[in-house]
Amino acid sequence: MPSVLAALDAQRVWDHCDALGRLSEQEGGLTRVFLSSQQRDANALVLAWMRDAGMTAHVDAMGNCVGRYEGARPGLPCLMLGSHLDTVRDAGQYDGMLGVLSAIECVGALNATGTRLPFAIEVIGFGDEEGVRFGSTLLGSRAIAGTFDPALLAKTDADGMTMREALTKFELDPTQYATAAHSPAQVLAYAELHIEQGPVLEAAGLPVGVVTAINGGYRFTIELTGMAGHAGTVPMGLRRDALAAAAECVVAVERIAGSMPDVVGTVGRIEARPGAMNVIPGKAQFSLDVRAPTDDKRHAAIAAIRAEFAAIAQRRNVDLAVTPLWEAKTSPCAPAMQEQIATAIHAEGIRVHRLPSGAGHDGMAIIDIAPIGMLFVRCKGGISHNPAEAVTLDDVATGLRVFARFILAFAPPSRSQ
Amino acid sequence: MPSVLAALDAQRVWDHCDALGRLSEQEGGLTRVFLSSQQRDANALVLAWMRDAGMTAHVDAMGNCVGRYEGARPGLPCLMLGSHLDTVRDAGQYDGMLGVLSAIECVGALNATGTRLPFAIEVIGFGDEEGVRFGSTLLGSRAIAGTFDPALLAKTDADGMTMREALTKFELDPTQYATAAHSPAQVLAYAELHIEQGPVLEAAGLPVGVVTAINGGYRFTIELTGMAGHAGTVPMGLRRDALAAAAECVVAVERIAGSMPDVVGTVGRIEARPGAMNVIPGKAQFSLDVRAPTDDKRHAAIAAIRAEFAAIAQRRNVDLAVTPLWEAKTSPCAPAMQEQIATAIHAEGIRVHRLPSGAGHDGMAIIDIAPIGMLFVRCKGGISHNPAEAVTLDDVATGLRVFARFILAFAPPSRSQ
Repeated sequence: MPSVLAALDAQRVWDHCDALGRLSEQEGGLTRVFLSSQQRDANALVLAWMRDAGMTAHVDAMGNCVGRYEGARPGLPCLMLGSHLDTVRDAGQYDGMLGVLSAIECVGALNATGTRLPFAIEVIGFGDEEGVRFGSTLLGSRAIAGTFDPALLAKTDADGMTMREALTKFELDPTQYATAAHSPAQVLAYAELHIEQGPVLEAAGLPVGVVTAINGGYRFTIELTGMAGHAGTVPMGLRRDALAAAAECVVAVERIAGSMPDVVGTVGRIEARPGAMNVIPGKAQFSLDVRAPTDDKRHAAIAAIRAEFAAIAQRRNVDLAVTPLWEAKTSPCAPAMQEQIATAIHAEGIRVHRLPSGAGHDGMAIIDIAPIGMLFVRCKGGISHNPAEAVTLDDVATGLRVFARFILAFAPPSRSQ
Repeated sequence: MPSVLAALDAQRVWDHCDALGRLSEQEGGLTRVFLSSQQRDANALVLAWMRDAGMTAHVDAMGNCVGRYEGARPGLPCLMLGSHLDTVRDAGQYDGMLGVLSAIECVGALNATGTRLPFAIEVIGFGDEEGVRFGSTLLGSRAIAGTFDPALLAKTDADGMTMREALTKFELDPTQYATAAHSPAQVLAYAELHIEQGPVLEAAGLPVGVVTAINGGYRFTIELTGMAGHAGTVPMGLRRDALAAAAECVVAVERIAGSMPDVVGTVGRIEARPGAMNVIPGKAQFSLDVRAPTDDKRHAAIAAIRAEFAAIAQRRNVDLAVTPLWEAKTSPCAPAMQEQIATAIHAEGIRVHRLPSGAGHDGMAIIDIAPIGMLFVRCKGGISHNPAEAVTLDDVATGLRVFARFILAFAPPSRSQ
């Protein structure tokens, strides 16, 4: 094991992040979307690095980079590692990429030391996780999990090109998407290293942490209807101010979410109508995004928030309409995967910190075929989806060592968990 | 006096409101702006009605209709009555007009009964109070008060026409605006009947009320700056959510204004940025409109609100910027005018209710040359600046009787008040 750890080269991962960070549709920023010419360039680099690391490598029917490092004998089921190679618009260069490149580096260290394990390793660079181009996320990992919905092939990008046409232009056959699928028997587990994209590890002074779950989420729009009126002529006691009601709801979201560990609730948008300085708002509309590491917690938070909204609306004599927009169930990380990642962290002499992932990840798709686990690496200021996204070389090195220790000691979790 | 009251005809006022309500730039609604062809048509009707009521009548250099009914002998100083003839866009047909037509009706009843008073009466139909066309309010009454700012002649309407050009097109000489001015010696007092434009009299079950003051106001924009972040990844305890801070401020405005009698505070606009459902707002901006019947109360309310904003911002570690936009000082109704109007209400057997005016009125300009007083008439649901604006014929009749009683008993207030 020491020789494998010694073979890890954080600087190479760092340099490769820089190289991928330059493959952008715009100058002076990073945007690389699904099936773009920039993805083609990124795939070429990644395939080459996979091969340098001793893997066979190809691009599958959905544009994912798939590298395979055989185990003690050919054809064994694999430990799947990976993350995504696409980006949001004006992205940072670690979100996704650091996980793919760290996995390749770990395999490279196995290969350099002649280490074969009692299982194969597959490293996937998913072609689409962010969903920027076609407005539907996790396209690459859903194809791998065999859950890709072919109806999505008809979705169009901003220029009116369908996904089917874009795949063809990328020299892929859109009728062959199912060939990307892996069966549960082929995949022992899935593990992903990813930057945290939040401020928790930084606040805790820790370079890495164990992810407990990829939080489920619920989004709503809320509309309150009171009575518009002249800002000068209607006394406070005779008002039915929809925005004042909404403001009380916003404060309630913060209070209720804050009282439930690991639950987050966010109002990101708000509007008052008619929206004039001298008119009491007759209507107010706002968005609500609630996430929690278990579905029970999420449902409990939503129930408490909705009850409070109803009480506010009733007390103020305004009408309340709550419209659900989107729901994602929680994707729990398998306890055995959490334990194995924790053991690897502990072996590096680092205090084990467990935290949920508030952001979505490819594991949300892969969980349909395999137990999942995630290792978070600290990032600066919790900033992500932003050019200011940053990690330190030391933390990359720590992440690599922990991830390699986890791989070397990996034992397939029981499927009953 | 009974014969004068018996000569009042509420139905005529009602019908004349209907007639003016038809003079609109659009079909199926009422919009009549300063110096429009609709104002020309309205002025023609109003001048004719003034003359029918025994007045000499002309259009002054700023487009105001000015009718004069001499007192016991010609040339006496006048009691000035009136309101405005312009409207907001998509207006109701009582805001302004009811005051002009009620004043004319009262003079007509004096004339019909051969009643001459120890003072003249002038009735003004102000050409602009709302400020819709040129974005500057009280143009007519400022010209009468001698406080019209000639720099405004260069202001343009939405079509790029200057006020100077519009006056010329209206066959008025823009260099002659000063001829509209009245000196304080010519005007004993100013009294205006107006619909309340709020719900107070309706809630009190009263047809009329005495106005204590035209509230002063203050408008601000408030910007809060926290830290944007991912709605999923930043725990509640590590957030600096600008919108949550703004929401707490909105609730505080309502609480503080509600705790101070006759103070109103309104947040009519709000925005969160970047304004995405899944992003914690890093900035929030909202408007604040505060009005009070005395400047002391208004300043006290503003001070309390600003102190609370500062405390909220400090506790939440967000930056606060408060930008004043506009201020209008309170225009108090002269105590002697309030008493005389109250006496007239009492004489009609109606409980005297005093209330401030939250909306602005021509008295805010005329107060520079004369003591002012106002009589409010109940309107339906507090609705104004809206086609649904409504009064009852009974309330018009009551308003007329009270206004006539006030005129008949009018005694010039001391200027020292």
